[in-house]
Amino acid sequence: MLGRMQDWPLTVDKILDHANTWHGAREIVTRSVEGPIVRSAYGQLHARAKQVTSALRDWGVEPGDRVATLAWNTARHMEVWYGAMGMGAVCHTLNPRLFPAQLVYIINHAGDRILFADLTFVPLLKAVLPRCPTVERVVLLSDADTVAGAGLDGALAYEALLQQARGPSHWGGFDERTACALCYTSGTTGDPKGVLYSHRSNFLHTLMGLQSTVLGADPSAVILPIVPMFHANAWGIAFAAPAAGAKLVMPGARMDGAAIHELIETEGVTFSGAVPTVWQGLLTHLRDNNLGLSTLKRVVIGGSAVPESLIRAFHDEFGVEVVQGWGMTETSPIGTLSNARPEISALSFDEQIKWRAKQGTPPLGVELTVKDAAGAVQPADGRSQGRLMVRGPGVAAGYFGQAGDVLDPDGYFDTGDIATIDPQGFLQITDRAKDVIKSGGEWISSVEIESIAAGHPDAELTAVVGVPHPRWDERPLLIVKLRPGAEPDAGSHLAFLAGKIARWWMPDAVRFVDDIPLGPTGKVDKKRLREDLLEITA
Amino acid sequence: MLGRMQDWPLTVDKILDHANTWHGAREIVTRSVEGPIVRSAYGQLHARAKQVTSALRDWGVEPGDRVATLAWNTARHMEVWYGAMGMGAVCHTLNPRLFPAQLVYIINHAGDRILFADLTFVPLLKAVLPRCPTVERVVLLSDADTVAGAGLDGALAYEALLQQARGPSHWGGFDERTACALCYTSGTTGDPKGVLYSHRSNFLHTLMGLQSTVLGADPSAVILPIVPMFHANAWGIAFAAPAAGAKLVMPGARMDGAAIHELIETEGVTFSGAVPTVWQGLLTHLRDNNLGLSTLKRVVIGGSAVPESLIRAFHDEFGVEVVQGWGMTETSPIGTLSNARPEISALSFDEQIKWRAKQGTPPLGVELTVKDAAGAVQPADGRSQGRLMVRGPGVAAGYFGQAGDVLDPDGYFDTGDIATIDPQGFLQITDRAKDVIKSGGEWISSVEIESIAAGHPDAELTAVVGVPHPRWDERPLLIVKLRPGAEPDAGSHLAFLAGKIARWWMPDAVRFVDDIPLGPTGKVDKKRLREDLLEITA
Repeated sequence: MLGRMQDWPLTVDKILDHANTWHGAREIVTRSVEGPIVRSAYGQLHARAKQVTSALRDWGVEPGDRVATLAWNTARHMEVWYGAMGMGAVCHTLNPRLFPAQLVYIINHAGDRILFADLTFVPLLKAVLPRCPTVERVVLLSDADTVAGAGLDGALAYEALLQQARGPSHWGGFDERTACALCYTSGTTGDPKGVLYSHRSNFLHTLMGLQSTVLGADPSAVILPIVPMFHANAWGIAFAAPAAGAKLVMPGARMDGAAIHELIETEGVTFSGAVPTVWQGLLTHLRDNNLGLSTLKRVVIGGSAVPESLIRAFHDEFGVEVVQGWGMTETSPIGTLSNARPEISALSFDEQIKWRAKQGTPPLGVELTVKDAAGAVQPADGRSQGRLMVRGPGVAAGYFGQAGDVLDPDGYFDTGDIATIDPQGFLQITDRAKDVIKSGGEWISSVEIESIAAGHPDAELTAVVGVPHPRWDERPLLIVKLRPGAEPDAGSHLAFLAGKIARWWMPDAVRFVDDIPLGPTGKVDKKRLREDLLEITA
Repeated sequence: MLGRMQDWPLTVDKILDHANTWHGAREIVTRSVEGPIVRSAYGQLHARAKQVTSALRDWGVEPGDRVATLAWNTARHMEVWYGAMGMGAVCHTLNPRLFPAQLVYIINHAGDRILFADLTFVPLLKAVLPRCPTVERVVLLSDADTVAGAGLDGALAYEALLQQARGPSHWGGFDERTACALCYTSGTTGDPKGVLYSHRSNFLHTLMGLQSTVLGADPSAVILPIVPMFHANAWGIAFAAPAAGAKLVMPGARMDGAAIHELIETEGVTFSGAVPTVWQGLLTHLRDNNLGLSTLKRVVIGGSAVPESLIRAFHDEFGVEVVQGWGMTETSPIGTLSNARPEISALSFDEQIKWRAKQGTPPLGVELTVKDAAGAVQPADGRSQGRLMVRGPGVAAGYFGQAGDVLDPDGYFDTGDIATIDPQGFLQITDRAKDVIKSGGEWISSVEIESIAAGHPDAELTAVVGVPHPRWDERPLLIVKLRPGAEPDAGSHLAFLAGKIARWWMPDAVRFVDDIPLGPTGKVDKKRLREDLLEITA
């Protein structure tokens, strides 16, 4: 027997309809790519997104077609995002930090027909577009005069396009399982793979994200998504903020400490999300200039493990709560958050840090388990490691353009992460499966060592990789990029680790390098790092 | 083109699975019907709910069959609730405040096969059961000895049943549109009608309820649902609290001011929900005994209009924020909440009260509009009244056992309420369509007048109804139940209204009565009131 409730498809056009009806005057403040701060509102976003649908339909774009963006976090990017999704096309966010060859691969694989791009990326477009035959039109996100001077032949001007849009808007009215957005994983192994979100998955992820323990947005919140829309959907903020009627502050192309600090203070930002490197940059700027954070209350940090020292600095020096998050493109991305529970909040901050430095627990709608190589579920004892497996309405079953699902017999997606879960339910990612160091039949967590090593006052960036060893199979090597002016002193870095990790986890050596390669989402690129080391050794 | 995300059906067994896995030790504290305070936890609730499924299947209960409860808010009631829903049966919550004849009608209409009941209701069961041939088994929610002494022939003991349950549990694994729960509207007009919730509607309603602007539950919250599980699903708290891992405090059969105050203080309650009469009772108890509320931060009040005086009293005397809510059985029930927005919070409390006394704005997932008799959408000007229409995944399309839908051509459900929406988006229910007073071609809101009249220091309860008038069609009559010891003084009650409502809204007369009849959900029963008045007049 079925229930007698309304059939109300979960499609994301309804998120913007809701924002328009109930929060139409709430602001979206953007540091524009052209320079000045510009102000918009959800009502305007709604009207302009509908104009985008008219323009797309005028060009013959059909539901299911891919419309790409190569853009920073701005109100215009959101207009295109909702315009493409709202008419049933697929909004494909491109990561400009990829190498041109990767972008070419992704654009061709997706078969993008239209590309909306920021002015910043004209040089990149010149390198990429000649090899992308499916792209019929390129629209630069600026006004006609600026675009005319941008030097990209045939590029259309976004503002002129919206002014010309005459046809009816095409908005909603499709099945909730319809494809909605496409985001490729950075592909440190093999070719990039496209995660194809549905309207249903994005709508449910939005509701999950609105919980007070996740983004917790409400109309009083002022949210600064530093995490880009092309990086796992800005962690859902581009949906959750309008859904809740929160004011949005969009950083555009500038994510340096000074620019971020200025936006926080002038716009009264209460909540933000970004990867650790951005927060390190802000922290340095604040300390160097003796500045404070007068409105910011809570930040979510994710994308890679958050050093304990960063959590402490925000708490002790600036009174800001750091919540660590774990997720990935394939999980939309919310997975877990390190919110303190009452039994943990009751402890001193020094005692709390043990949990705050973990990745935390999942909200309703994310099912997590840890399985060993044979598929057996591991106990939640904080020690038993295994592959982190995940299920939920916001989790990928397969990839765009690839037949079949990639799930295990129980329907779980294999995250490729190695993790433990402790008796309080807190997840800790100990490593990527491909980075874990196998030493004497046991696993050593490269992530845990490098996270502790990052607290050494001389260290700017650290990494740990396994190097072959005749007796132990692999042994850890600590790689350190020093702060400017610091002297290499291997003993000091090893002594800093002593007592904080098991003795057999101690790196056999320290290597000082001028730079540690980062991947396109700001994480250490261990594949390249290992290749570089091999070159040095050879 | 469809997305490539997981097919993860939204079924409520997963809510309890989530609570068990991540919040298994979080407490459920119950004031038991037998008397003592008893303690359980989500892990235990999960295990016992699964035992309920075994018992039900042993009796041949199939998915889709109706399993009724006639019970207070207790951990045991939640076990039966999740047990019935978790195996795919329909949990039918019966309202014990209905007249026996209404209960008989509802039980027969639903075709309930099994009935779980609290000891309190043995006399009611004796009156009802002989006329309910579909009920095969009655289980009393207590232990074997207590049930043996309860005096209901053939009744089974709940605790003995759980001990005997041997079979495998039957848990989840069905379509998300499967019927999940059944709740009849109180039926002040015509026969009661059954709202048949689906797993999908309850799961989505739970996610909607977890927003910080709605219930805002998190693991640090301690939630006291005074609103009964048989009254519009305890406003979703029986789902939202386990979903968020919040501690639950269940009041059992005692909802008087003293009992509620004791639970709040001893268990550290931070959030609660109930109808206005319960809060009036608590307020009187606090004032009479010079008591405070040391942990309570926020209460949602709904079910009928909240007098301004109550909102002020909680704010001024006890530092508790009152959020007014509107909803109904057919909306699961969340509709709107009167959360202050930043532009309103910035005002003085006296200025805020104008919005706090309204019903507020909807969260994502509730679409509201106001239409006139011809179906035209009314402007959000705070003046234009019309019928409140609602759409959403938690809104009924039709009723159990009735063919066809009851929606308008745009898919809206007609709430039967008359409302306005102001430029800030705040909904105000001005009346029930059947109670609105039509005077000289215009509408007078009985609700608004009685809500203001309730602030008179001598008034214990007030009601306003339309009485026939030769020239104006109808005119308002104010009915007042005085506080003990107060003297009837019509002029004083009318003077109290003067200047607070339009002059042509002023009641033509005041009638003092010993009692004002209440319906089974604690609202003034205006149908009976009008009948009583006719008798007096005749």
